Amino acid sequence: MKGQDVISLSPKAVSSALTSLWRPIAGGLTAPLGFQASGIPAGLKESGKPDLALLLAPEGAVCAGTFTNSLVRAACVDLCVDRLKTAGGMARAVLINSGQANACTGDRGMHDSMQATQRLAELLALPVEQVLICSTGVIGVPIAMDSLLAGLPPLVKALSHEGGANAATAILTTDLVEKQFALEAELGGRRVRIGGMAKGSGMIHPDMATMLGYLSCDVGISVDVWQAMVKRVVDRSFNAITVDGDTSTNDSLLAFAAGEPLELQYLEALEAGLMAVAQHLAKASARDGEGATCLLEVHVEGVASDVEACCIARTICGSSLVKTAVHGCDPNWGRIVAAAGRAGVAFDPAAVALWLGPHQLLEFGQPLSFDRLAVSRYIQERMDGAYLSDDTVRICLVVGDGSGDGTAWGCDLSDQYVRINADYTT
Amino acid sequence: MKGQDVISLSPKAVSSALTSLWRPIAGGLTAPLGFQASGIPAGLKESGKPDLALLLAPEGAVCAGTFTNSLVRAACVDLCVDRLKTAGGMARAVLINSGQANACTGDRGMHDSMQATQRLAELLALPVEQVLICSTGVIGVPIAMDSLLAGLPPLVKALSHEGGANAATAILTTDLVEKQFALEAELGGRRVRIGGMAKGSGMIHPDMATMLGYLSCDVGISVDVWQAMVKRVVDRSFNAITVDGDTSTNDSLLAFAAGEPLELQYLEALEAGLMAVAQHLAKASARDGEGATCLLEVHVEGVASDVEACCIARTICGSSLVKTAVHGCDPNWGRIVAAAGRAGVAFDPAAVALWLGPHQLLEFGQPLSFDRLAVSRYIQERMDGAYLSDDTVRICLVVGDGSGDGTAWGCDLSDQYVRINADYTT
Repeated sequence: MKGQDVISLSPKAVSSALTSLWRPIAGGLTAPLGFQASGIPAGLKESGKPDLALLLAPEGAVCAGTFTNSLVRAACVDLCVDRLKTAGGMARAVLINSGQANACTGDRGMHDSMQATQRLAELLALPVEQVLICSTGVIGVPIAMDSLLAGLPPLVKALSHEGGANAATAILTTDLVEKQFALEAELGGRRVRIGGMAKGSGMIHPDMATMLGYLSCDVGISVDVWQAMVKRVVDRSFNAITVDGDTSTNDSLLAFAAGEPLELQYLEALEAGLMAVAQHLAKASARDGEGATCLLEVHVEGVASDVEACCIARTICGSSLVKTAVHGCDPNWGRIVAAAGRAGVAFDPAAVALWLGPHQLLEFGQPLSFDRLAVSRYIQERMDGAYLSDDTVRICLVVGDGSGDGTAWGCDLSDQYVRINADYTT
Repeated sequence: MKGQDVISLSPKAVSSALTSLWRPIAGGLTAPLGFQASGIPAGLKESGKPDLALLLAPEGAVCAGTFTNSLVRAACVDLCVDRLKTAGGMARAVLINSGQANACTGDRGMHDSMQATQRLAELLALPVEQVLICSTGVIGVPIAMDSLLAGLPPLVKALSHEGGANAATAILTTDLVEKQFALEAELGGRRVRIGGMAKGSGMIHPDMATMLGYLSCDVGISVDVWQAMVKRVVDRSFNAITVDGDTSTNDSLLAFAAGEPLELQYLEALEAGLMAVAQHLAKASARDGEGATCLLEVHVEGVASDVEACCIARTICGSSLVKTAVHGCDPNWGRIVAAAGRAGVAFDPAAVALWLGPHQLLEFGQPLSFDRLAVSRYIQERMDGAYLSDDTVRICLVVGDGSGDGTAWGCDLSDQYVRINADYTT
């Protein structure tokens, strides 16, 4: 009898159910128990804006990191990789400076990074192996070390359990808004919180998408389990956004966890929450892409594997022709299909179906007749603020009947992007 | 004794010596002996501009083709590939329509392509296997067949040994200028001519860079030798340009050769000439990229192989951040090095040297102090027409002491690119 069947949920239904356990709470990186942060203006930026941030995790914290795959990477990236290895994935603090990327600065780059963390480790009374550093700003410019070193004592003094927002502001460069988020759930009779902050704007592309991202979580967890979980989460969040196809020399994500151990049966729920925080921050970074006027979400279904689906989604999301068409509210679906065709993933062009928002434009690889003005209006309304609660332009491409799916996020390409980037250093 | 040494020239010196055998002559595709072409307005474009072109090669012509690698490709591409295979690389004519790309048009796409070539074959009294077709324009829109079929008789009637320029005009879409070129040399006591035309503008990227390119040559040559030569030439010309990273559904290059056989000893000289014509057309296509205000040339040296050098050069040339910096006359060398770092080619970042025009910006991977205003002026002068004879902004990156080198061409990214592509179909 039907009533006696064992109900088995699909993996996606399970994931959705687990995600619904989590509810947004105020704050960001310092929402989880025991985490402290601070952010101050230390004179590294000429503008006088906040430019030095610090995160301090509770005792016993583990840290998982994922970093840029670029061959040309800043000294601070090398330092983080080395120290996480040396300390077996244990880390307590990370210092972040904005204004100077400290990449392509030769031996001086590593020297400055080491000196900054050494001084900070002394102030915090921590082993230097557990103190990390990230830098963001103009490539080729060394850190303004006098300002940085002078800023460390007041930065440490400013540490607070409510300091997440100050840190989130101090890591920005050309970003328009600070990006922080936190979720909370009851797991096994106790409260668990996950927080995070990010900066992005230009140079955002898969292979460590956002320039800088930070996550915090108040559970105790083994280094190996945490690192694997963070890797899966980053692949479906920060590595699924693209602004202009340029990866940076400094891209880094660091995820800290410390607190009471969590029972193993709740790990899946924890991962769902971590995914939700990471995706929220990743999408916020894409939405805040340089010159962006909307968030572009591309969902691809029906491919053999999730990896291939993500690959197609990212290629569409990164296409300059698709991005300019969206900016022009132009339902030029041919560019979407053409981008999918060059993603390097096999599919049958004659099986493709395409939606732009609720409007289906293509079936069996051929154009349907559609109301061009209505589709154009769908995009326009998401750009001009009429739908402020939903500024996401959604593209959905179904390319067959495979079980793989994936989503990528990006933004439109506007005249403003060109102006911002034509005049960045001069 | 030194005087008795056999002088052996480097491969590059030989290539340069061979190229110097060739001199520019008037005309394009119809400059070689026996080739005829025509181009007329047939009503496919709403603007009333020329939109139908025809090339007729002499009897016995061989044809080599290279085509888009995109999975989503127009019916005309499939037709060309099939017919060249069926006819063993023999082809006499190609019809080209602009206005409708005839891609993503389902079964109708192939039907229309076959009907158009069938009718043309009858008018030219040729076997249909030797008649090809290319289409360019908006994806998803079928060819305006009534206009095309009605246009065929006057198109055939207009065939002329001076018709190259008319054909070059009729294949344009958003291009600003027609692109044709021809060279001539004395090889073995006889005159040899090579001609060509191209269209490009948007959707230009490696993997068949220009949307459409055509070459003609008045020598007899075996199909296999010709196909291999054309492949090498395309890799270093049309496949070395990039405008916006988007490959098209219709990218095709067709190279016809027919005439008196050429002695084998002159094949190398012939290839040098073919390369010069193809590179001229490829560079003209990049220069005419949508919204471009200068030609960007990126040369990379010191890599293990030519293929790897080309890969780095193309990545730099295609970086939105590099392209916008050039547009802003901004010597932001960090973006150039960052782009090189994500090309997927191994090199030592600490060995990198970089020049922008005559100005060296980087040595041993570290910035030199340089006159920022002078470098900015170097770019500005090439953009504002003060150096009309040289509108090429040159970037040279030396990444080690390997013997591989390669060059890529592109253009800057301007506000105008966004405007053109935001409003293309609506």
